[in-house]
Amino acid sequence: MKSLTEHLWFEVPARCGFVNITNTVEELVRRSGVQEGICLVNAMHITASVFINDNEGGLHHDYEVWLEKLAPHEPLKNYQHNRTGEDNADAHLKRQIMGREVVVAITKRKLDFGPWEQIFYGEFDGRRRKRVLVKIIGE
Amino acid sequence: MKSLTEHLWFEVPARCGFVNITNTVEELVRRSGVQEGICLVNAMHITASVFINDNEGGLHHDYEVWLEKLAPHEPLKNYQHNRTGEDNADAHLKRQIMGREVVVAITKRKLDFGPWEQIFYGEFDGRRRKRVLVKIIGE
Amino acid sequence: MKSLTEHLWFEVPARCGFVNITNTVEELVRRSGVQEGICLVNAMHITASVFINDNEGGLHHDYEVWLEKLAPHEPLKNYQHNRTGEDNADAHLKRQIMGREVVVAITKRKLDFGPWEQIFYGEFDGRRRKRVLVKIIGE
Repeated sequence: MKSLTEHLWFEVPARCGFVNITNTVEELVRRSGVQEGICLVNAMHITASVFINDNEGGLHHDYEVWLEKLAPHEPLKNYQHNRTGEDNADAHLKRQIMGREVVVAITKRKLDFGPWEQIFYGEFDGRRRKRVLVKIIGE
Repeated sequence: MKSLTEHLWFEVPARCGFVNITNTVEELVRRSGVQEGICLVNAMHITASVFINDNEGGLHHDYEVWLEKLAPHEPLKNYQHNRTGEDNADAHLKRQIMGREVVVAITKRKLDFGPWEQIFYGEFDGRRRKRVLVKIIGE
Repeated sequence: MKSLTEHLWFEVPARCGFVNITNTVEELVRRSGVQEGICLVNAMHITASVFINDNEGGLHHDYEVWLEKLAPHEPLKNYQHNRTGEDNADAHLKRQIMGREVVVAITKRKLDFGPWEQIFYGEFDGRRRKRVLVKIIGE
């Protein structure tokens, strides 16, 4: 069995934002030498997500508006978590909707993707350095 | 390490619908010859889901009503994504709630399931042919 | 390839509750002898979740309040699923938000975690015995 472990670093300049990491992950799959296997990509922070969806700016705007409606940032005092001195309770909620991780099949040395699938890092409490883990296993 | 890759095709006749794919996936596990491993099942389209829950029609109705409330299809103009000429922004949102994929353990040549676990394809923008990927790895 | 399969049992005394299972999963990783691989942890019941987030009581309270708002337990008759004699339709919905499973990388014999990542069993229809599956594969 082969394996590869890599950490990707991000510092999103706003509180929320989405970063397309598809090419980076594809390059790691090539480097791993795995022909058949799986690739796990997960946020290592609990106020961020990794998810697969469309590379379309209008949709990303829609996600931000929708998540803010489902889990509003303010009023801060509506969340007990914010009594710890944090102001990011909403980010912990948003991340559960968008998910922590994706698992992608590797077939014939490539990510086995449908036509529009792209991998995104989703940030809900940015303006600081945070990590994503890529783990590849297979043969 | 053994592996098996298979694409399943669906054309759901309505915009939304759920299809039980448990038996198909179980048959693929048998065919793979894997005794101990994992089985990844994911939608290859970004307006559809694969999820595990109950094979009960009333619950599926409840999911449809609930998702429509959380991410309504109309008014179409409420979503920037629909300015691209699409009318399926809501489907991209619904799919994030229900999830892209499931990873199921294979133990002693079978899906290692609790008593009520069943795998479903969840369609939120149907009336066209779409795919699901099944990837099995193990020994 | 090495593998380990283990079932964890829970009986949460209330309808909803969260149980930190990180140490138990870490001990299973040690016992598996896997150096590089992945660890799948999933609820075997369809009204419960396994998720990764913060070990902070205020946040867990916020999750309960938020999930109750998104998918209220009552009125029971608002859900067709409850016509089967069940009263747990809301639990099937809540579990989709929080997720069925997590997949965690194993690197150098340990769960490859960010600083605050902890694994939780999330119960939405408790007061009875239910199971979680841990499946570890790798080398």
